[in-house]
Amino acid sequence: MRLRNKPGASEALLKQPTIVIQNPENNKGKWREIFGNDNPIHVEVGTGKGQFLTGMSQLHPEVNYIGVEKYDSVIITALERIQKAELTNFKLLNEDVVNLINYFVEGEIDRVYINFTDPWPKNRHEKRRLTYENFLKMYEQVLKKNGEVHFKTDNQGLFEYSLHSFSKYGLILNNVSLDLHNSNIEENVMTEYEEKFSQKGMRIYRCEAQFR
Amino acid sequence: MRLRNKPGASEALLKQPTIVIQNPENNKGKWREIFGNDNPIHVEVGTGKGQFLTGMSQLHPEVNYIGVEKYDSVIITALERIQKAELTNFKLLNEDVVNLINYFVEGEIDRVYINFTDPWPKNRHEKRRLTYENFLKMYEQVLKKNGEVHFKTDNQGLFEYSLHSFSKYGLILNNVSLDLHNSNIEENVMTEYEEKFSQKGMRIYRCEAQFR
Repeated sequence: MRLRNKPGASEALLKQPTIVIQNPENNKGKWREIFGNDNPIHVEVGTGKGQFLTGMSQLHPEVNYIGVEKYDSVIITALERIQKAELTNFKLLNEDVVNLINYFVEGEIDRVYINFTDPWPKNRHEKRRLTYENFLKMYEQVLKKNGEVHFKTDNQGLFEYSLHSFSKYGLILNNVSLDLHNSNIEENVMTEYEEKFSQKGMRIYRCEAQFR
Repeated sequence: MRLRNKPGASEALLKQPTIVIQNPENNKGKWREIFGNDNPIHVEVGTGKGQFLTGMSQLHPEVNYIGVEKYDSVIITALERIQKAELTNFKLLNEDVVNLINYFVEGEIDRVYINFTDPWPKNRHEKRRLTYENFLKMYEQVLKKNGEVHFKTDNQGLFEYSLHSFSKYGLILNNVSLDLHNSNIEENVMTEYEEKFSQKGMRIYRCEAQFR
């Protein structure tokens, strides 16, 4: 994610506490109350500017979405999208994913999305990849039993690594697609990166990794 | 595998019983005696015309290779290659892979190769794919503990399916390559199919699936 500083972003986020949830650790176990219903909760880690979850929350009013993004300067765009579309089933956490287990009780989440995350291609940065085993451990803890991680990327090396990491952790790989945009897919909401890379003719890789 | 009938192939195979091993069920547990050494044994299922194992056995005299192929008309070419190169560490079984566990005792094999196997793309033919769970169960039985299946294909659908099948069975996917010929590989002996498809610019997919 290329970052430009956005003056005033931090203040703007604080002004919308019903959308950008402050101190999310206080809501651990209470997310269904926050949304005011018992719908399933899907969390996107590294939600960026929120294009994916904006599309998903419009398509699926029967699902509650939470986008986690640590950078003010990009999550501010997600906030603007939520306001513009008047979405009530899409909330934001302006937080670091490494703290995910502080925000949810065991089994509180129904699905995790990881879309076009930073590949951290150097071996010494393996632990920063959002498909590294420490992150999988966190997802497993907050996901319901047999919960799934839905993963898309244009980065071949990251996908190869993630297939290793998922399988080593014991996850089952379902609906693997090695060329998503030339596959038979019924529904695919595109992220901003995905639009950009697929227009260039690059392959998009996708899989659903399911915990046992 | 497109098959042409080769007159006399069947008879020619029978004439070389030290290379094309007859009644291999009689050698269960005795393969190290057949080869006359204690080197590791690597088996290729569906060895076709034997180009891959011919190359491997020349590169690795410290390994014993067994190619299993049910069709007379193609395995005859493998026999001719072995004779021409005077290879002593490459034997052939003119048998169907479905009977693999009849030919080896538990843990007798060190590695299994599956190269460019028939993709059987129709769902109703899933059970015929050499990466279907029933085959994995057989490989697990004859492989040593933590043994590996090394798998290459040009067929995207088969590779996607196999990633699912391997991970569902609990195998760990190592050294996944989604574009083998544009990867940093140290050694890659090509099969006949591989030469043909990669020359056309098609991607070759590869992984090593390890039993736990």
